[in-house]
Amino acid sequence: MNCEIICVGTELLLGDIVNTNSVYLSKELAKLGINVLYQSVVGDNDSRLEECIRKSLEKSDIIILTGGLGPTADDITKEVCCKALGFELEINEKQLRKIENYFCSKNIEMPESNKKQAYLPKSGYVLENNNGTAPGFAIEKNSKCIISLPGPPREMKPMFENGAKPILEKYSSAVLVSHNVRMIGIGEAKMAEDAGKLLDGENPTVAPYAKDGECLLRVTAKAKDKNTAEKMCSKILDEIYKKFSEYIYGIDIDGIEYAVVEKLKEKKLKVAFAESCTGGLCAKRITDVPGASQVFDCGVVSYANSIKNKLLNVREEDLEKYGAVSETVAKQMAKGVLELSGADIGVSITGIAGPDNDGSEKPVGLSYIAVAYKDEVVCTEFMTARKDRDYNRFANSSKAFDAVRKIIDKF
Amino acid sequence: MNCEIICVGTELLLGDIVNTNSVYLSKELAKLGINVLYQSVVGDNDSRLEECIRKSLEKSDIIILTGGLGPTADDITKEVCCKALGFELEINEKQLRKIENYFCSKNIEMPESNKKQAYLPKSGYVLENNNGTAPGFAIEKNSKCIISLPGPPREMKPMFENGAKPILEKYSSAVLVSHNVRMIGIGEAKMAEDAGKLLDGENPTVAPYAKDGECLLRVTAKAKDKNTAEKMCSKILDEIYKKFSEYIYGIDIDGIEYAVVEKLKEKKLKVAFAESCTGGLCAKRITDVPGASQVFDCGVVSYANSIKNKLLNVREEDLEKYGAVSETVAKQMAKGVLELSGADIGVSITGIAGPDNDGSEKPVGLSYIAVAYKDEVVCTEFMTARKDRDYNRFANSSKAFDAVRKIIDKF
Repeated sequence: MNCEIICVGTELLLGDIVNTNSVYLSKELAKLGINVLYQSVVGDNDSRLEECIRKSLEKSDIIILTGGLGPTADDITKEVCCKALGFELEINEKQLRKIENYFCSKNIEMPESNKKQAYLPKSGYVLENNNGTAPGFAIEKNSKCIISLPGPPREMKPMFENGAKPILEKYSSAVLVSHNVRMIGIGEAKMAEDAGKLLDGENPTVAPYAKDGECLLRVTAKAKDKNTAEKMCSKILDEIYKKFSEYIYGIDIDGIEYAVVEKLKEKKLKVAFAESCTGGLCAKRITDVPGASQVFDCGVVSYANSIKNKLLNVREEDLEKYGAVSETVAKQMAKGVLELSGADIGVSITGIAGPDNDGSEKPVGLSYIAVAYKDEVVCTEFMTARKDRDYNRFANSSKAFDAVRKIIDKF
Repeated sequence: MNCEIICVGTELLLGDIVNTNSVYLSKELAKLGINVLYQSVVGDNDSRLEECIRKSLEKSDIIILTGGLGPTADDITKEVCCKALGFELEINEKQLRKIENYFCSKNIEMPESNKKQAYLPKSGYVLENNNGTAPGFAIEKNSKCIISLPGPPREMKPMFENGAKPILEKYSSAVLVSHNVRMIGIGEAKMAEDAGKLLDGENPTVAPYAKDGECLLRVTAKAKDKNTAEKMCSKILDEIYKKFSEYIYGIDIDGIEYAVVEKLKEKKLKVAFAESCTGGLCAKRITDVPGASQVFDCGVVSYANSIKNKLLNVREEDLEKYGAVSETVAKQMAKGVLELSGADIGVSITGIAGPDNDGSEKPVGLSYIAVAYKDEVVCTEFMTARKDRDYNRFANSSKAFDAVRKIIDKF
């Protein structure tokens, strides 16, 4: 089954917003084994949208539309869609009451214009919207299926999940299951080389990807049902684990900070950060994880040398002799924050993120990450080839988390 | 002049990457006064790409393609494009030498496959790539223009700027100039209401937008040249300034942290942060700004009460009596970090970001932001209606920056 995603909205054509709906839908459709062959964006314009739908019907079995279901005059998706397919709109009393209740619960009188949202195609499925006032719909004609969803992601996603997916499952003869094996400490080229023949498989496929400061292997299996696909993946995942165990921090996980919080929780340990070049990014990332308070009490952003000395007990003469970006200072920072915070693991990051260097002869991209625990302190020097401040800061914070991940095993 | 953007790449259809090229190009084309009526994404497939280009030629004057210029067999944009338009490819000796030099400078032997990248349409413009090995090209036929750019944004953007834009300017009879007036402390609905008739203008247009924790008015003028358009905007911008002066933190600026760093620099002041719920996000955001070290020395992430007490001198009995999320504690945190850091302004943020609350009866979304300076300390209570952790953290960090912005005027 081939599918086209059509996103309706002039704001997309102006580049005002990023088209994240296409990303979400493409991923979800892939999981259902439905091939997305085209994505299109078209503005809030009757004739262009109609032509777009007509052309899409010629080449695709399934069309998924997002956007244009609002109450204003330039919300035209429903009207144009019905016109192109020869369906009539009629008022849906249940949806009208639901929209009225929505306003009632907020103590606002329903604007007359919202009544428009209760008109739906006569012979289609209504897709409930529990996060806004625009119901969606699905219509089927000549064994083709057209689904219309609202534009705002927080309305579109639950409607897809609860309303559209059960309908689409009928159209799918296969399911796709994917797993992402995430790694830090190995480059993409080396990872691909070491993966060797694993990358040649046709089902499951194994594909290498690089992300900022880390990389991943995606294993994807296609089968008639989820269980079979999972079993196919599992064999390959075992092989990947054997080859890359020292680099893998998790599978299907949101990021290294999630893996680290989980591991710290298991061992009932706490971590503290002393950050210079990352400027609070490690603290920000660990506290992105709900429940981080179980494993994280304290972070110090010691951006100036005076603060490194005052709060973290880094010796002034070492700051002068070796500079802030040095192994000596990194180690003292890590020890300092360990002592200050009373945590089990103290981590420090000091480096030159760019775009310019610190006036010394040290290059942009150089960094030192130290970890203090028990009576030990270890430090690693890193060098990236990039002058990109955002990249260097993010990659350094990931390396710091990876350093913590490895130390946890020593407890 | 009407334009279609066609992005080529199966990774886009799978939802593996977000289509940021379309956003960038749409914005740039709008500035040139070129209307983007369609955006499409098509996979690395000969016949579908060819059909897509043919259909696009029927409806658009300008086609901009991105992606598919790499050295591998599934990079087909150049070949398909020339086939659809009846152009021939030939080796371009200058580009071949450039590609060879690219590898030579990295001490790598050029893989044979990269030779493919030096083949270019016989009668077209070559667009130089100074950030990779794939040259782009522009061809003109029957007063239509087709431009092909590489997929990676760091290659695509400079090529568009330096190579494609000068060609496209010929096709443009008008320019668009936009300015974004950014505000914090006023909601979108209230802003739109207060803007009143300003929103009805047709040229310049004024459009309201909401972003996480802030909102903006975009003023856009269309004219035959840039100067005229700027003058048209400037009149409206004055009116907006008069109405919203207390909320506006900047025009065409990357974010409130940039405005704050600028203002602090002007007055030679330093700020320090004591963060609880934002967990380092304020420190992270201020150090996102290159040169932040002139205005920022120190941040403390006091996620646990014990750290609030130990590092920031928040009184234990107050933590117990009022809880960490309280005006009393916020004020002590701000004073504490002011003293600890030796900065001119100390800011604290304590709140309940969610998804769950802190076990007390306080609701998710509640926060206190305090600013200590000289001998003063002021605190504001905020409440958002959302349970979204990321939103609440980001919005709170923006409010903290806005609080700093307002205090700077007291120096």
